[in-house]
Amino acid sequence: MSDNINFEISPRSFTRVLVAVDEDDSHSSIRAFNYAVTTAKRLNAPLGIVSILEVEDFNIFDTLSPEVMKQRRSQVTDDLARYVNKARSFGVKEIQAFTGEGKPADIIINDILPEFNPDLLVCGSKTKPVNERKKIFIGSQASAMAQNAPCSVIVVR
Amino acid sequence: MSDNINFEISPRSFTRVLVAVDEDDSHSSIRAFNYAVTTAKRLNAPLGIVSILEVEDFNIFDTLSPEVMKQRRSQVTDDLARYVNKARSFGVKEIQAFTGEGKPADIIINDILPEFNPDLLVCGSKTKPVNERKKIFIGSQASAMAQNAPCSVIVVR
Repeated sequence: MSDNINFEISPRSFTRVLVAVDEDDSHSSIRAFNYAVTTAKRLNAPLGIVSILEVEDFNIFDTLSPEVMKQRRSQVTDDLARYVNKARSFGVKEIQAFTGEGKPADIIINDILPEFNPDLLVCGSKTKPVNERKKIFIGSQASAMAQNAPCSVIVVR
Repeated sequence: MSDNINFEISPRSFTRVLVAVDEDDSHSSIRAFNYAVTTAKRLNAPLGIVSILEVEDFNIFDTLSPEVMKQRRSQVTDDLARYVNKARSFGVKEIQAFTGEGKPADIIINDILPEFNPDLLVCGSKTKPVNERKKIFIGSQASAMAQNAPCSVIVVR
Protein backbone atom coordinates (compact mmCIF):
# COMPACT_ATOMS: atom_id res chain seq x y z
CA MET A 1 0.00 0.00 0.00
CA SER A 2 1.12 3.55 -0.61
CA ASP A 3 1.04 6.12 2.15
CA ASN A 4 0.34 9.01 -0.20
CA ILE A 5 -3.37 8.32 -0.29
CA ASN A 6 -3.63 8.31 3.47
CA PHE A 7 -5.98 11.32 3.68
CA GLU A 8 -9.30 12.41 5.13
CA ILE A 9 -12.10 13.22 2.67
CA SER A 10 -13.01 16.92 2.67
CA PRO A 11 -16.39 17.58 1.08
CA ARG A 12 -15.74 19.70 -2.01
CA SER A 13 -17.97 22.34 -3.53
CA PHE A 14 -17.70 25.65 -5.41
CA THR A 15 -18.33 29.28 -4.48
CA ARG A 16 -18.30 31.26 -7.77
CA VAL A 17 -19.52 29.88 -11.10
CA LEU A 18 -18.74 31.27 -14.57
CA VAL A 19 -20.56 29.89 -17.61
CA ALA A 20 -19.38 30.43 -21.18
CA VAL A 21 -22.14 30.62 -23.79
CA ASP A 22 -21.32 30.53 -27.53
CA GLU A 23 -22.94 33.14 -29.67
CA ASP A 24 -23.26 30.64 -32.52
CA ASP A 25 -24.01 27.36 -30.78
CA SER A 26 -27.18 27.60 -28.78
CA HIS A 27 -27.63 23.83 -28.37
CA SER A 28 -24.33 23.31 -26.57
CA SER A 29 -24.66 26.60 -24.68
CA ILE A 30 -28.11 25.82 -23.31
CA ARG A 31 -26.90 22.54 -21.77
CA ALA A 32 -24.00 24.35 -20.09
CA PHE A 33 -26.26 27.19 -19.00
CA ASN A 34 -28.85 24.81 -17.49
CA TYR A 35 -26.14 23.13 -15.42
CA ALA A 36 -24.59 26.46 -14.37
CA VAL A 37 -27.83 28.04 -13.15
CA THR A 38 -28.84 24.81 -11.36
CA THR A 39 -25.49 24.78 -9.58
CA ALA A 40 -25.35 28.53 -8.79
CA LYS A 41 -28.88 28.45 -7.37
CA ARG A 42 -28.23 25.34 -5.25
CA LEU A 43 -25.00 26.77 -3.84
CA ASN A 44 -26.31 30.33 -3.61
CA ALA A 45 -23.18 31.28 -5.58
CA PRO A 46 -22.61 34.36 -7.72
CA LEU A 47 -22.97 33.49 -11.43
CA GLY A 48 -20.94 35.05 -14.24
CA ILE A 49 -22.17 34.64 -17.83
CA VAL A 50 -19.68 35.28 -20.63
CA SER A 51 -20.16 35.35 -24.39
CA ILE A 52 -17.19 35.91 -26.69
CA LEU A 53 -17.59 37.14 -30.25
CA GLU A 54 -15.47 34.62 -32.18
CA VAL A 55 -13.63 36.94 -34.53
CA GLU A 56 -11.60 34.19 -36.20
CA ASP A 57 -14.82 32.51 -37.35
CA PHE A 58 -15.54 35.39 -39.72
CA ASN A 59 -14.33 35.53 -43.28
CA ILE A 60 -12.12 38.44 -44.24
CA PHE A 61 -14.91 40.49 -45.79
CA ASP A 62 -17.10 40.16 -42.72
CA THR A 63 -14.22 41.06 -40.47
CA LEU A 64 -13.63 44.24 -42.42
CA SER A 65 -17.26 45.29 -42.61
CA PRO A 66 -18.19 47.61 -39.76
CA GLU A 67 -21.87 46.88 -40.39
CA VAL A 68 -21.48 43.12 -39.89
CA MET A 69 -19.34 43.63 -36.80
CA LYS A 70 -21.92 45.99 -35.37
CA GLN A 71 -24.69 43.48 -36.01
CA ARG A 72 -22.75 40.59 -34.42
CA ARG A 73 -21.81 42.67 -31.40
CA SER A 74 -25.41 43.68 -30.98
CA GLN A 75 -26.58 40.08 -31.13
CA VAL A 76 -24.02 38.98 -28.51
CA THR A 77 -25.21 41.74 -26.18
CA ASP A 78 -28.89 40.94 -26.73
CA ASP A 79 -28.39 37.20 -26.22
CA LEU A 80 -26.39 37.83 -23.07
CA ALA A 81 -29.17 40.01 -21.66
CA ARG A 82 -31.63 37.19 -22.28
CA TYR A 83 -29.40 34.66 -20.50
CA VAL A 84 -29.09 37.04 -17.54
CA ASN A 85 -32.88 37.43 -17.36
CA LYS A 86 -33.40 33.67 -17.51
CA ALA A 87 -30.90 33.08 -14.70
CA ARG A 88 -32.59 35.74 -12.57
CA SER A 89 -36.07 34.27 -13.20
CA PHE A 90 -34.72 30.84 -12.24
CA GLY A 91 -33.67 32.20 -8.87
CA VAL A 92 -29.98 33.07 -9.15
CA LYS A 93 -29.49 36.21 -7.11
CA GLU A 94 -26.09 37.62 -8.06
CA ILE A 95 -25.33 37.72 -11.78
CA GLN A 96 -22.63 39.44 -13.82
CA ALA A 97 -22.38 39.48 -17.63
CA PHE A 98 -19.14 39.66 -19.63
CA THR A 99 -18.36 40.02 -23.33
CA GLY A 100 -15.17 40.00 -25.36
CA GLU A 101 -13.83 39.39 -28.88
CA GLY A 102 -11.28 36.88 -30.11
CA LYS A 103 -10.65 33.21 -29.34
CA PRO A 104 -13.03 32.27 -26.52
CA ALA A 105 -10.53 30.17 -24.53
CA ASP A 106 -7.83 32.87 -24.69
CA ILE A 107 -10.11 35.76 -23.79
CA ILE A 108 -11.85 33.87 -21.00
CA ILE A 109 -8.60 32.60 -19.45
CA ASN A 110 -6.63 35.83 -19.80
CA ASP A 111 -9.30 38.48 -19.22
CA ILE A 112 -12.52 37.12 -17.70
CA LEU A 113 -11.21 34.62 -15.12
CA PRO A 114 -8.93 37.17 -13.42
CA GLU A 115 -11.81 39.65 -13.29
CA PHE A 116 -14.62 37.40 -12.03
CA ASN A 117 -12.39 34.92 -10.19
CA PRO A 118 -14.63 31.82 -10.34
CA ASP A 119 -13.61 28.46 -8.88
CA LEU A 120 -15.74 26.65 -11.48
CA LEU A 121 -15.90 27.39 -15.21
CA VAL A 122 -18.81 25.75 -17.06
CA CYS A 123 -18.75 25.32 -20.84
CA GLY A 124 -20.45 23.32 -23.54
CA SER A 125 -18.73 21.31 -26.23
CA LYS A 126 -19.13 22.78 -29.68
CA THR A 127 -19.11 20.26 -32.47
CA LYS A 128 -18.94 22.13 -35.75
CA PRO A 129 -16.06 22.67 -38.18
CA VAL A 130 -14.37 25.97 -37.45
CA ASN A 131 -11.61 26.46 -40.02
CA GLU A 132 -11.60 26.76 -43.77
CA ARG A 133 -9.72 23.50 -44.35
CA LYS A 134 -12.87 21.80 -43.02
CA LYS A 135 -10.97 20.16 -40.22
CA ILE A 136 -13.44 19.45 -37.47
CA PHE A 137 -12.39 20.60 -34.03
CA ILE A 138 -14.73 18.93 -31.60
CA GLY A 139 -14.88 21.12 -28.56
CA SER A 140 -11.45 22.63 -29.14
CA GLN A 141 -12.23 25.76 -27.11
CA ALA A 142 -13.72 23.68 -24.28
CA SER A 143 -10.68 21.44 -24.34
CA ALA A 144 -8.32 24.44 -24.28
CA MET A 145 -10.17 25.83 -21.27
CA ALA A 146 -10.16 22.45 -19.50
CA GLN A 147 -6.42 22.22 -20.03
CA ASN A 148 -5.35 25.79 -19.30
CA ALA A 149 -7.75 27.41 -16.86
CA PRO A 150 -6.39 27.72 -13.32
CA CYS A 151 -9.81 26.79 -11.85
CA SER A 152 -11.95 23.68 -12.16
CA VAL A 153 -13.66 23.29 -15.54
CA ILE A 154 -16.75 21.27 -16.43
CA VAL A 155 -17.55 20.48 -20.06
CA VAL A 156 -21.29 19.77 -20.09
CA ARG A 157 -22.67 17.36 -22.71
CA MET B 1 -32.48 39.20 -30.71
CA SER B 2 -32.04 35.61 -31.77
CA ASP B 3 -34.84 33.12 -31.42
CA ASN B 4 -32.53 30.17 -30.84
CA ILE B 5 -32.09 30.93 -27.15
CA ASN B 6 -35.82 31.01 -26.58
CA PHE B 7 -35.88 28.05 -24.17
CA GLU B 8 -37.06 27.04 -20.73
CA ILE B 9 -34.41 26.25 -18.13
CA SER B 10 -34.37 22.57 -17.16
CA PRO B 11 -32.54 21.93 -13.90
CA ARG B 12 -29.56 19.74 -14.75
CA SER B 13 -27.91 17.10 -12.60
CA PHE B 14 -26.12 13.77 -12.97
CA THR B 15 -27.04 10.16 -12.19
CA ARG B 16 -23.81 8.12 -12.45
CA VAL B 17 -20.38 9.46 -11.53
CA LEU B 18 -17.01 8.00 -12.55
CA VAL B 19 -13.80 9.35 -11.02
CA ALA B 20 -10.35 8.73 -12.48
CA VAL B 21 -7.52 8.54 -9.94
CA ASP B 22 -3.89 8.53 -11.06
CA GLU B 23 -1.64 5.89 -9.58
CA ASP B 24 1.24 8.36 -9.53
CA ASP B 25 -0.36 11.69 -8.69
CA SER B 26 -2.09 11.54 -5.37
CA HIS B 27 -2.40 15.32 -4.95
CA SER B 28 -4.44 15.83 -8.10
CA SER B 29 -6.36 12.57 -7.56
CA ILE B 30 -7.44 13.45 -4.03
CA ARG B 31 -9.01 16.73 -5.16
CA ALA B 32 -10.95 14.90 -7.89
CA PHE B 33 -11.90 12.13 -5.49
CA ASN B 34 -13.16 14.58 -2.83
CA TYR B 35 -15.41 16.24 -5.41
CA ALA B 36 -16.64 12.91 -6.81
CA VAL B 37 -17.62 11.41 -3.44
CA THR B 38 -19.27 14.68 -2.34
CA THR B 39 -21.32 14.67 -5.55
CA ALA B 40 -22.18 10.96 -5.56
CA LYS B 41 -23.32 11.10 -1.92
CA ARG B 42 -25.41 14.24 -2.45
CA LEU B 43 -27.11 12.80 -5.54
CA ASN B 44 -27.29 9.26 -4.15
CA ALA B 45 -25.60 8.23 -7.40
CA PRO B 46 -23.56 5.09 -8.09
CA LEU B 47 -19.83 5.90 -8.05
CA GLY B 48 -17.21 4.26 -10.27
CA ILE B 49 -13.53 4.62 -9.35
CA VAL B 50 -10.95 3.90 -12.04
CA SER B 51 -7.16 3.77 -11.86
CA ILE B 52 -5.13 3.11 -14.99
CA LEU B 53 -1.58 1.81 -14.88
CA GLU B 54 0.22 4.24 -17.19
CA VAL B 55 2.36 1.84 -19.17
CA GLU B 56 3.90 4.53 -21.40
CA ASP B 57 5.39 6.22 -18.33
CA PHE B 58 7.75 3.29 -17.78
CA ASN B 59 11.14 2.99 -19.37
CA ILE B 60 11.77 0.01 -21.58
CA PHE B 61 13.52 -2.05 -18.90
CA ASP B 62 10.72 -1.54 -16.42
CA THR B 63 8.16 -2.44 -19.05
CA LEU B 64 9.96 -5.68 -19.73
CA SER B 65 10.48 -6.66 -16.11
CA PRO B 66 7.68 -8.90 -14.86
CA GLU B 67 8.66 -8.10 -11.28
CA VAL B 68 8.22 -4.34 -11.71
CA MET B 69 4.95 -4.81 -13.56
CA LYS B 70 3.67 -7.10 -10.82
CA GLN B 71 4.62 -4.54 -8.16
CA ARG B 72 2.93 -1.65 -10.01
CA ARG B 73 -0.21 -3.68 -10.66
CA SER B 74 -0.34 -4.64 -7.02
CA GLN B 75 -0.02 -0.99 -5.94
CA VAL B 76 -2.82 0.12 -8.28
CA THR B 77 -5.09 -2.58 -6.86
CA ASP B 78 -4.23 -1.73 -3.25
CA ASP B 79 -4.71 2.02 -3.78
CA LEU B 80 -8.02 1.41 -5.51
CA ALA B 81 -9.24 -0.70 -2.58
CA ARG B 82 -8.37 2.15 -0.23
CA TYR B 83 -10.28 4.67 -2.34
CA VAL B 84 -13.30 2.34 -2.37
CA ASN B 85 -13.19 2.02 1.42
CA LYS B 86 -12.91 5.79 1.86
CA ALA B 87 -15.92 6.39 -0.42
CA ARG B 88 -17.93 3.79 1.50
CA SER B 89 -17.00 5.31 4.89
CA PHE B 90 -18.02 8.74 3.56
CA GLY B 91 -21.49 7.42 2.80
CA VAL B 92 -21.51 6.48 -0.88
CA LYS B 93 -23.65 3.38 -1.15
CA GLU B 94 -23.01 1.90 -4.59
CA ILE B 95 -19.35 1.73 -5.65
CA GLN B 96 -17.59 -0.08 -8.49
CA ALA B 97 -13.80 -0.20 -9.03
CA PHE B 98 -12.08 -0.48 -12.41
CA THR B 99 -8.46 -0.91 -13.49
CA GLY B 100 -6.69 -0.99 -16.83
CA GLU B 101 -3.28 -0.48 -18.47
CA GLY B 102 -2.22 1.99 -21.15
CA LYS B 103 -2.97 5.65 -21.78
CA PRO B 104 -5.57 6.69 -19.20
CA ALA B 105 -7.72 8.78 -21.56
CA ASP B 106 -7.82 6.05 -24.22
CA ILE B 107 -8.58 3.20 -21.83
CA ILE B 108 -11.20 5.19 -19.92
CA ILE B 109 -12.98 6.42 -23.04
CA ASN B 110 -12.84 3.16 -24.98
CA ASP B 111 -13.25 0.57 -22.21
CA ILE B 112 -14.48 1.99 -18.91
CA LEU B 113 -17.12 4.52 -20.03
CA PRO B 114 -19.04 1.96 -22.13
CA GLU B 115 -18.97 -0.49 -19.21
CA PHE B 116 -19.97 1.86 -16.34
CA ASN B 117 -21.94 4.32 -18.48
CA PRO B 118 -21.54 7.48 -16.32
CA ASP B 119 -23.03 10.82 -17.26
CA LEU B 120 -20.24 12.63 -15.39
CA LEU B 121 -16.53 11.83 -15.52
CA VAL B 122 -14.42 13.48 -12.80
CA CYS B 123 -10.66 13.84 -13.17
CA GLY B 124 -7.78 15.81 -11.72
CA SER B 125 -5.22 17.74 -13.69
CA LYS B 126 -1.77 16.22 -13.53
CA THR B 127 1.04 18.72 -13.78
CA LYS B 128 4.27 16.82 -14.18
CA PRO B 129 6.47 16.19 -17.26
CA VAL B 130 5.53 12.88 -18.83
CA ASN B 131 7.82 12.27 -21.79
CA GLU B 132 11.55 11.92 -22.14
CA ARG B 133 12.04 15.15 -24.12
CA LYS B 134 11.02 16.92 -20.88
CA LYS B 135 8.10 18.59 -22.57
CA ILE B 136 5.56 19.36 -19.88
CA PHE B 137 2.04 18.23 -20.62
CA ILE B 138 -0.16 19.96 -18.12
CA GLY B 139 -3.21 17.82 -17.71
CA SER B 140 -2.92 16.25 -21.16
CA GLN B 141 -4.93 13.19 -20.16
CA ALA B 142 -7.60 15.33 -18.49
CA SER B 143 -7.75 17.52 -21.57
CA ALA B 144 -8.04 14.49 -23.86
CA MET B 145 -10.92 13.18 -21.75
CA ALA B 146 -12.63 16.59 -21.67
CA GLN B 147 -12.40 16.74 -25.45
CA ASN B 148 -13.27 13.18 -26.40
CA ALA B 149 -15.54 11.65 -23.77
CA PRO B 150 -19.19 11.38 -24.83
CA CYS B 151 -20.36 12.38 -21.33
CA SER B 152 -19.82 15.54 -19.28
CA VAL B 153 -16.31 15.87 -17.85
CA ILE B 154 -15.13 17.93 -14.89
CA VAL B 155 -11.45 18.67 -14.38
CA VAL B 156 -11.10 19.45 -10.68
CA ARG B 157 -8.33 21.83 -9.57
